[in-house]
Amino acid sequence: MSAAAPDRPGEDALIARYFAPLAGEGADGLRDDAASLTPRPGHDLVLTADAIVAGVHYFPEDPPESVARKALGVNLSDLAAKGAAPRAYLLSLGLAPDWTEAWLAGFSAGLAEAASAFGCPLLGGDTVRAAGPAFIGITALGELPSGTMVRRQGARVGDRVCVSGTIGDAALGLALRLAPAGAALARLESDARAVLLDRYLHPRPRLTLAPLLRRYASAAMDVSDGLAGDLAKMMGGGRRAEIREADVPLSPAARLALAADPALLDTALTGGDDYEILCTVPPGAEAAFRAEAAAAGVPVAVIGVVGAGEGPPIFTTEEGVSRSLSAGSFSHF
Amino acid sequence: MSAAAPDRPGEDALIARYFAPLAGEGADGLRDDAASLTPRPGHDLVLTADAIVAGVHYFPEDPPESVARKALGVNLSDLAAKGAAPRAYLLSLGLAPDWTEAWLAGFSAGLAEAASAFGCPLLGGDTVRAAGPAFIGITALGELPSGTMVRRQGARVGDRVCVSGTIGDAALGLALRLAPAGAALARLESDARAVLLDRYLHPRPRLTLAPLLRRYASAAMDVSDGLAGDLAKMMGGGRRAEIREADVPLSPAARLALAADPALLDTALTGGDDYEILCTVPPGAEAAFRAEAAAAGVPVAVIGVVGAGEGPPIFTTEEGVSRSLSAGSFSHF
Repeated sequence: MSAAAPDRPGEDALIARYFAPLAGEGADGLRDDAASLTPRPGHDLVLTADAIVAGVHYFPEDPPESVARKALGVNLSDLAAKGAAPRAYLLSLGLAPDWTEAWLAGFSAGLAEAASAFGCPLLGGDTVRAAGPAFIGITALGELPSGTMVRRQGARVGDRVCVSGTIGDAALGLALRLAPAGAALARLESDARAVLLDRYLHPRPRLTLAPLLRRYASAAMDVSDGLAGDLAKMMGGGRRAEIREADVPLSPAARLALAADPALLDTALTGGDDYEILCTVPPGAEAAFRAEAAAAGVPVAVIGVVGAGEGPPIFTTEEGVSRSLSAGSFSHF
Repeated sequence: MSAAAPDRPGEDALIARYFAPLAGEGADGLRDDAASLTPRPGHDLVLTADAIVAGVHYFPEDPPESVARKALGVNLSDLAAKGAAPRAYLLSLGLAPDWTEAWLAGFSAGLAEAASAFGCPLLGGDTVRAAGPAFIGITALGELPSGTMVRRQGARVGDRVCVSGTIGDAALGLALRLAPAGAALARLESDARAVLLDRYLHPRPRLTLAPLLRRYASAAMDVSDGLAGDLAKMMGGGRRAEIREADVPLSPAARLALAADPALLDTALTGGDDYEILCTVPPGAEAAFRAEAAAAGVPVAVIGVVGAGEGPPIFTTEEGVSRSLSAGSFSHF
């Protein structure tokens, strides 16, 4: 609908310079309008699409390398939770009117590094003018043996509720960035700050758990919108999560933040951006699941049980005080 | 990064109301974070991703049904050009801050109708706040017998250059919408206006040509950025398109527009948004290709030949006057 900016490279030049070097098999160096992919016999594809938007899902001033890693990471986290291994991704990049080649160079470098680390090459996509804040839409494709995708809705009453890693770090990292100068959180010591800020910027999709989820999990999803809200999504239909609050795994950095301001516990439990795995396993299977996960380098904690009932998850303290926690205020929508 | 608008339905409610009814097999009613797809044995998948942005690729005041049809249509046009049959699509919808449920209802209705007409169900995606103008990112998946994808770069010197349908209608429709009140184009009679405006709003992906392209075409792409620019993309490497200007198929409406303002010929040849098929076929095969295309209901014209040389396509008039035409000014970037 409008003319190209006079002194900027066109879409084809941008693609050739910044994205063609990232292209995987079947992408033909991004010289075509579509890519081909030969599926692995006996396997299903798992597909997910998530977009992130400047000023909504990340800060416009975040390093472009980090933005790229987050955009790919949040999608691969969904694949891992379904039990799939990454196969390839497509990118739709909307560039803000004030984009610079330095930003794009950093973004493509971050994408190249993340794609290489995660074993997930670029297959295609497009680059457009966003006419407003930048957006990054990614569609990720994974693969798993036919019929083995782990669903969100498979939990049974009595199953154990498990999470990987630690919960709340990213939400506390975001709270740190938003904290006014006088807030207790703003006085956190620098090592802990660095850990929390890094967890917000750099999701780590738990790809190594994917084969274990296929073997052990009755249901799984990644924790992206907060533990409480995502537990609610996983339940329903006569099932309600009963969580032992003290068993929710917290990092040393998160414990320091909560010591500074105990009210931040709700931020940790509802805040989102964890990109850890939330899953349920049948009673009796949790020991084997945890042992194999630990052997793969990923700590897994059992935090509660699937109870009968309806409503948001119930969190119970060591003192026996129970409360139900709904989704937090840090909704992306 | 920010709280949900207080009196708007959340993402899950929107998905359940407007998009779950569109979900195809493997999408599990959009209740999961990913979908599964079982590939057809002996077939490759063809993947393409194109985003359209309000104020860049469509007018914000366009009917939401039309915006939906365009968003899906431009992607399926890519699949058709590669010889693939549509299988499914994923949607990333970025809603502008002033979105309304009426807009979303129209958008999802248009998407449902287009997906049904094109045989391409919704498989997944997400809905986010755009923080600026709306954007619609679609990733479309097609299928074809293994190893038969038609490439953009397969033309050989001596091959015939063909296009489907008529060229320039959409670009003239866009010019109509942008024309000042006193312009010659603004006085076009209403039937012709309606045709041109409709071609701009409603791409018609040439899905019926896909199997014929696999059989006959040495190279193919869809005409999205203008005939001249797309011909240049298809050539290179010692090949240059030589086009007989009078053989470029024009609709009666386009002929009326050009009669009103002959300078609009360049708009027709360079303007874009045609979503017709541009392909090359070996000499001798064009008659069979055209006959089978006509039997399938799609007129195909032979407009020139692949010559030896470098540079943008050469257009030659009936009087023997030649000129080279570069990509037009209506770049989307």
